Amino acid sequence: MRVGVIGGGQLARMMIPAAINLGVDLHVLAESQGMSAEPAVTAVGDYRNLDEVLRFCSDVDVVTFDHEHVPQSVLLALEDAGVVVRPGAGALQYAQDKILMREKLSEMGMPVPRWAAVSNAAELADFLDDNSGAAVVKTARGGYDGKGVRVVREAHEVDDWFMALAEDANGGSLLVEELVDFRRELAQSVARRPSGQIAAWPVVESIQREGVCAEVIAPAPSSAGKLAQVAADVAIAIAEGLDVSGVLAVELFETMDDRILVNELAMRPHNSGHWSIEGSTTSQFEQHLRAVLDLPLGATGCVQPWAVMVNVLGGPSSGVLADRYAAVFDDHPTAKVHNYGKASRPGRKVGHVTVTGSDLDEVAYDARAAAAQLSD
Amino acid sequence: MRVGVIGGGQLARMMIPAAINLGVDLHVLAESQGMSAEPAVTAVGDYRNLDEVLRFCSDVDVVTFDHEHVPQSVLLALEDAGVVVRPGAGALQYAQDKILMREKLSEMGMPVPRWAAVSNAAELADFLDDNSGAAVVKTARGGYDGKGVRVVREAHEVDDWFMALAEDANGGSLLVEELVDFRRELAQSVARRPSGQIAAWPVVESIQREGVCAEVIAPAPSSAGKLAQVAADVAIAIAEGLDVSGVLAVELFETMDDRILVNELAMRPHNSGHWSIEGSTTSQFEQHLRAVLDLPLGATGCVQPWAVMVNVLGGPSSGVLADRYAAVFDDHPTAKVHNYGKASRPGRKVGHVTVTGSDLDEVAYDARAAAAQLSD
Repeated sequence: MRVGVIGGGQLARMMIPAAINLGVDLHVLAESQGMSAEPAVTAVGDYRNLDEVLRFCSDVDVVTFDHEHVPQSVLLALEDAGVVVRPGAGALQYAQDKILMREKLSEMGMPVPRWAAVSNAAELADFLDDNSGAAVVKTARGGYDGKGVRVVREAHEVDDWFMALAEDANGGSLLVEELVDFRRELAQSVARRPSGQIAAWPVVESIQREGVCAEVIAPAPSSAGKLAQVAADVAIAIAEGLDVSGVLAVELFETMDDRILVNELAMRPHNSGHWSIEGSTTSQFEQHLRAVLDLPLGATGCVQPWAVMVNVLGGPSSGVLADRYAAVFDDHPTAKVHNYGKASRPGRKVGHVTVTGSDLDEVAYDARAAAAQLSD
Repeated sequence: MRVGVIGGGQLARMMIPAAINLGVDLHVLAESQGMSAEPAVTAVGDYRNLDEVLRFCSDVDVVTFDHEHVPQSVLLALEDAGVVVRPGAGALQYAQDKILMREKLSEMGMPVPRWAAVSNAAELADFLDDNSGAAVVKTARGGYDGKGVRVVREAHEVDDWFMALAEDANGGSLLVEELVDFRRELAQSVARRPSGQIAAWPVVESIQREGVCAEVIAPAPSSAGKLAQVAADVAIAIAEGLDVSGVLAVELFETMDDRILVNELAMRPHNSGHWSIEGSTTSQFEQHLRAVLDLPLGATGCVQPWAVMVNVLGGPSSGVLADRYAAVFDDHPTAKVHNYGKASRPGRKVGHVTVTGSDLDEVAYDARAAAAQLSD
């Protein structure tokens, strides 16, 4: 069984242990030398170049992704050439274009924030007028980790984006959404096989700082019962409706008036699911491999009552992450450290720490303190 | 941090996921192409050839092992050349020579079966006379998985071994031990850092079939309290007394009259510790890397009340292990399958299955049934 992964980042890296365990031969097409997934990199090339991608895919059983940036034209050409692409181009378009995603989810009757596609300041002004004078504007394509997202109160605050769209041959619109009054953010991951089987992990709480995921608590506190069921039902409906194969992560708002609204989608293992490596019977990386290979999915329960995952953002100001191991391991023997093999850079995700256990306060303390020490 | 591993078997393979997580650069010297540890193999060579081993060790921070077969002459020369070897030659001699091991453990006052070193049939006959007419004879060197072990009732049953010793320039003796009347076999693993810190996992029950480990139950049923403490104390004393660094596995007999006797030692991750990958906060493979790098050791508690590990012996009679995944995953969603990437061969360890959970009967059923299906 050989699985090709396009993209050499930490998500591809974290598929390696799962692949080793299952005896799956993992081949990674990296953007450049020395990336996170280096131990499994078999080719370096441009994922926008069809010839390079086709060459990479020529000897794999199925191709999947570390990110969602492979252009539709390349994805469709791969499928035409008979490459097994999972998730397929038809599903990935919704992860690549936020306006398409909003249209599709609205059509399916999924709970989403009020939204509109706007192509000039006048249209945006109308939306602001109808929504208490504040909104979130997002570029339809290319945003991630808070990039391409702006909270606006004046229609002219995104004039630069409108101008860029006007100069772009593809044209297009911006997505504007109501500013949701939320209690907290949740994330619901599921995995789906091409033949239809779906498995859902428990819904988790995701804590963002400056638009970037900082911490995840699994399961989300006080989520048993109705909330967990609604979150799972929504993600399962989306996975089916969009014909996703592999892991789908659905970022959700829990509103102050107790509704669940869909924020973003990712069709791959996702930061909000890293806790599952230690915290669940089946990690999202193993499950993604099983799903794209169309193998029966693994059990998704928690192995301990709580798991807390804290990102290591930035990394140490001098030296490398491993220089901190002696102190971190000494102070936090239960901390599981994941080092993505990246150089430090402010705000960059260079690793994460997960702690599992039965006392949430203790688990969260150790995970946060260990992650903080690693960035010292 | 770069760790070199001599030997390309499944133990080196299972260090890869731990190395990826910690960002440790793992280099493996394999005996031949296409071995289990292939994804991390950086050199193929003969571990008995000092020049080849020295070349392999030239750019690693520390060298450790997949097996205990590297000759003392090579180990000592590496140490003389300034290579950091963990465990060192001084410790490894006791894992390489069972008579040396028995002498050392007896001298330390460790609980061992009655034993003697015998160099001819007359000496063996004397031992049989003193021990109710039955004994276990072992070659001092080179035995594993039941090879080099024979239960004898007549002194002439190992004449072939005496003859081989007589022809061997190194000469030497056979080890003879009382046939221990044991209730069950246990295994106690610990890890020790060169700077002295030791961590012990819970003692486990190990079930052998035809001299090969078939199954491990962690923790050993009814082992809480005194038994667990005695087992841990014995292994800790041995790790200290023999100056072990890295993982030490001590195979034990629990006798019918409630004593613990030391059977065998292994100074590396061991089959009896594979359960720790899913079953313990820190797996034996991560702990071994931490220990040989002299980093603080991780917590060794169980993440679920029970873990059962069952070896996949032989492998499927036709096709490869992965051909069985669809059926096995469907029937046993909690089973964690480890595939060593080896071809089938009668009796060969080609993989293992671990299941964790709170109901031992269920856990054991799933692990046994999944492993059996993989060998169908």
